[in-house]
Amino acid sequence: METIDLAVKQAAQAFTTYKKISPRQRAAFLRAIAEEINTLGDELINTASAESNLPLPRLQGERDRTTGQLRLFADLITEGSWVNARIDKGTPDIRQMQIPLGVIGIFGASNFPLAFSVAGGDTAAALAAGSTVVFKAHPAHPQTSDLVANAILTAAKNTGLPEGVFSLIHGATIDTGQQLALHPQLSAIAFTGSFRGGKALYDTATRRVVPIPVYAEMGSVNPVFFLPRVLKEKGEALAAQFLQSLTMGVGQFCTNPGVFLTLNGTDKSVPFNGPSSSYEGMENKQASVSSNETNASPSSNRSGTDLFLPTLQKGIAAMPTGRMLTPGILEAYNSGINSLRQAGAQLLGKAPATAHQASPALLQISATQALEDPALCHEVFGPSSLHISANSKEELFQLANALEGQLTATIHGTEEDLHEYAELVDILREKAGRIVINGFPTGVAVNHAMVHGGPWPATTPAAGTSVGSSAIYRFCRPVCYQDFPAYLLPPELQDENPLGIWRLFNGNFSKT
Amino acid sequence: METIDLAVKQAAQAFTTYKKISPRQRAAFLRAIAEEINTLGDELINTASAESNLPLPRLQGERDRTTGQLRLFADLITEGSWVNARIDKGTPDIRQMQIPLGVIGIFGASNFPLAFSVAGGDTAAALAAGSTVVFKAHPAHPQTSDLVANAILTAAKNTGLPEGVFSLIHGATIDTGQQLALHPQLSAIAFTGSFRGGKALYDTATRRVVPIPVYAEMGSVNPVFFLPRVLKEKGEALAAQFLQSLTMGVGQFCTNPGVFLTLNGTDKSVPFNGPSSSYEGMENKQASVSSNETNASPSSNRSGTDLFLPTLQKGIAAMPTGRMLTPGILEAYNSGINSLRQAGAQLLGKAPATAHQASPALLQISATQALEDPALCHEVFGPSSLHISANSKEELFQLANALEGQLTATIHGTEEDLHEYAELVDILREKAGRIVINGFPTGVAVNHAMVHGGPWPATTPAAGTSVGSSAIYRFCRPVCYQDFPAYLLPPELQDENPLGIWRLFNGNFSKT
Repeated sequence: METIDLAVKQAAQAFTTYKKISPRQRAAFLRAIAEEINTLGDELINTASAESNLPLPRLQGERDRTTGQLRLFADLITEGSWVNARIDKGTPDIRQMQIPLGVIGIFGASNFPLAFSVAGGDTAAALAAGSTVVFKAHPAHPQTSDLVANAILTAAKNTGLPEGVFSLIHGATIDTGQQLALHPQLSAIAFTGSFRGGKALYDTATRRVVPIPVYAEMGSVNPVFFLPRVLKEKGEALAAQFLQSLTMGVGQFCTNPGVFLTLNGTDKSVPFNGPSSSYEGMENKQASVSSNETNASPSSNRSGTDLFLPTLQKGIAAMPTGRMLTPGILEAYNSGINSLRQAGAQLLGKAPATAHQASPALLQISATQALEDPALCHEVFGPSSLHISANSKEELFQLANALEGQLTATIHGTEEDLHEYAELVDILREKAGRIVINGFPTGVAVNHAMVHGGPWPATTPAAGTSVGSSAIYRFCRPVCYQDFPAYLLPPELQDENPLGIWRLFNGNFSKT
Repeated sequence: METIDLAVKQAAQAFTTYKKISPRQRAAFLRAIAEEINTLGDELINTASAESNLPLPRLQGERDRTTGQLRLFADLITEGSWVNARIDKGTPDIRQMQIPLGVIGIFGASNFPLAFSVAGGDTAAALAAGSTVVFKAHPAHPQTSDLVANAILTAAKNTGLPEGVFSLIHGATIDTGQQLALHPQLSAIAFTGSFRGGKALYDTATRRVVPIPVYAEMGSVNPVFFLPRVLKEKGEALAAQFLQSLTMGVGQFCTNPGVFLTLNGTDKSVPFNGPSSSYEGMENKQASVSSNETNASPSSNRSGTDLFLPTLQKGIAAMPTGRMLTPGILEAYNSGINSLRQAGAQLLGKAPATAHQASPALLQISATQALEDPALCHEVFGPSSLHISANSKEELFQLANALEGQLTATIHGTEEDLHEYAELVDILREKAGRIVINGFPTGVAVNHAMVHGGPWPATTPAAGTSVGSSAIYRFCRPVCYQDFPAYLLPPELQDENPLGIWRLFNGNFSKT
């Protein structure tokens, strides 16, 4: 635990100088990190693949995403308006801007060994804000973490930054994280991972003598609503797209569509005659509920509507199985599905089980079950999705209203559907940070407008994002300067506006 | 407790329509509230004065502040740019804006029966954001609260808003507040008051099944640093101004300067030969520490420097005593001073005690005492201030570094002082939300740039303000719309920009 103490102390010391360097210097640091990561070349990609079971092309893409994020934040702080400078001249003269928060403890995710890990979005946002970082490596990819940390340290050295501006700590036990979260010199925590992990950090941080904010992204089930007309028009095509979204990356995305909803009468399924319903590593405990599996009745004279679920069912059996990030994650996936089945969910279909691989699966519960036991809709991390069929428009809205907080919520519908179900958009806006129309939640664009966050338990607090340039606001706070002489004001707030940034000057936006 | 449940349920129901009305309609509501408050005329001022012991002119000013705040937020949402609209066209098309949070539970302060109470800053900001409000009246001014609540309800009715958009609840026990904080349909809490009260709400809200944010303003001691040269130049005048700031409104401001610091050698005090050191309602427990009171030695050949403390000492004895807001607050004030003296603080001077009135007082501890026992610097709400004398520049910085989070921190210095002590500005920026140069912390301007917030325990979270237009951001959160057809987008995010607001369009600020 001495390592943690030392790392935070060095980060606090480094903060006293790092917070004072110019935005351009900070931007140069971020760009240098991107360069150093690229310099690691194949070694990084191969190491990450060996540790995560993720394929090389996916990791090459993820590396580009990582360096792209670093450059986005470099551009953001070079442009400069993000500080939200506000100047109210008068008596008194008050000038506000964002300042960095201090030392940020960041916990990396297992499922993105690059983009949500050591030099990922949280690190880029925190360093861009002028905060310093102590990063807790995810135990699933220690060598990848070391490689990237060295890239950051090299970049720091080459851009003349003090030791401690960034440091990496390892530790597979919960104690490491708790110790970091409790350090008195820590100013905030950022976390991406499970609800259990995020909640534990939240509880620790809010019960400190001096509580600190926890920005935890704890995943969600990302409900997808398929409205009647669009299913009729292109149910088959939507089924194929949905399966792609569901099984991409072995379903290991926090935006994976874990629940999908349709309106009864538009969603006929056929009985599942697939492989053994026992998941590997688990006993066949669901025998007692297997009668549920034949509740669904086959349909004939199929329209596009009728084709949606059968296409899904047929398709899921043909989806490739895949190795998950860790054996523990695979075990949790299988266990999650078995729990659902024990609780009364019926299996609509699954791909044949393969040793040590996750089998994509579709399950189903009734609207009544969903409303009576909201826990059924908790996240099962991996390539499975739970179908809920509503018996009426009202019940569909009721199901939407009963949802917990989500990162995303998606609606598929024709223009006519969307007009008729306009209230659904309204309900879902209260449930999620991102609402998607006629798309799929997987794939999170990195830009200025993205919100990757949402009401509890998706994230805490709801008013934040861990993707996109707004993510920087988690690592700063506003301060105002009253009646400061010009020579004490930061450039962002000087009358002459030497940085040429957009400011709210006496209530008007201006760049002069 | 049925009242609370009903109020929150009605507020949740009202939210479903209130969130959808146009910004202009919300602005009209806020302006109507201001009108209705003015219509109450002398009745409101007289009632507030009778309940709070505050003088009429002060309350007239506070009423103007209250209606001014309502109009500021009306203007803000009419102008519209506050929603931080961000549009990134492309594949996918992502558009972000702020949306209201839901039902806000607001707890009013005792010391501002109008401006930080029923129709105060928190209510104005929450209603402006499009959230609905359940307001817990402070038990110190129930009739004032009812009058203002009726003004809001009349305004709501006259502008066609649904029942429940605002409601007032009474309750003098902690249970009322806890019940409100625990209501499952509450989205956030705003609070202004004591650390104990704010901390209790924070603990409750963070331990809920679904935690919610608490925006608590819990006061601070607002340290004022007097640097050597400025004391030499105008110590006498500064002493007079400091006493005004300290005793204004019987010291009942969260920005009251409760601690002031000087550098040894520039801060000679004289022995205190004032009235009995016993505070009303308290036993004379401090006899044992009375020897401390003669530690300070008189000075001769006085320069401006030497005149600072003697002028303060002389002046404090002549400052008027005053009735505090409630007998309980007076008792806490006297008890706080007696506790300080028992802990070893020396009394520098005080005004003669008067029955049922608070006597302004100055106390002193050494830098060593301050560093060894930080609790000595906790807030004593009322017209007293604690002097700490540093023996060196380093010790002054050490004292600054040891400060807890503050709403404000103030430095008095000549230009030469400020250059020599530039590091002090740097240290204090980490400690407070507002840094004041050559002014006094009392008096909080209501404008766009104001920050009335600061690191724990001043407020939670540090990244917020309860005064000024930025206060609106506590009651909303960002949401993004992905690939929305134009007819489903809110006006703020439509291509045509029908509201003509400033937006970040493809990374560039634009009003078109």
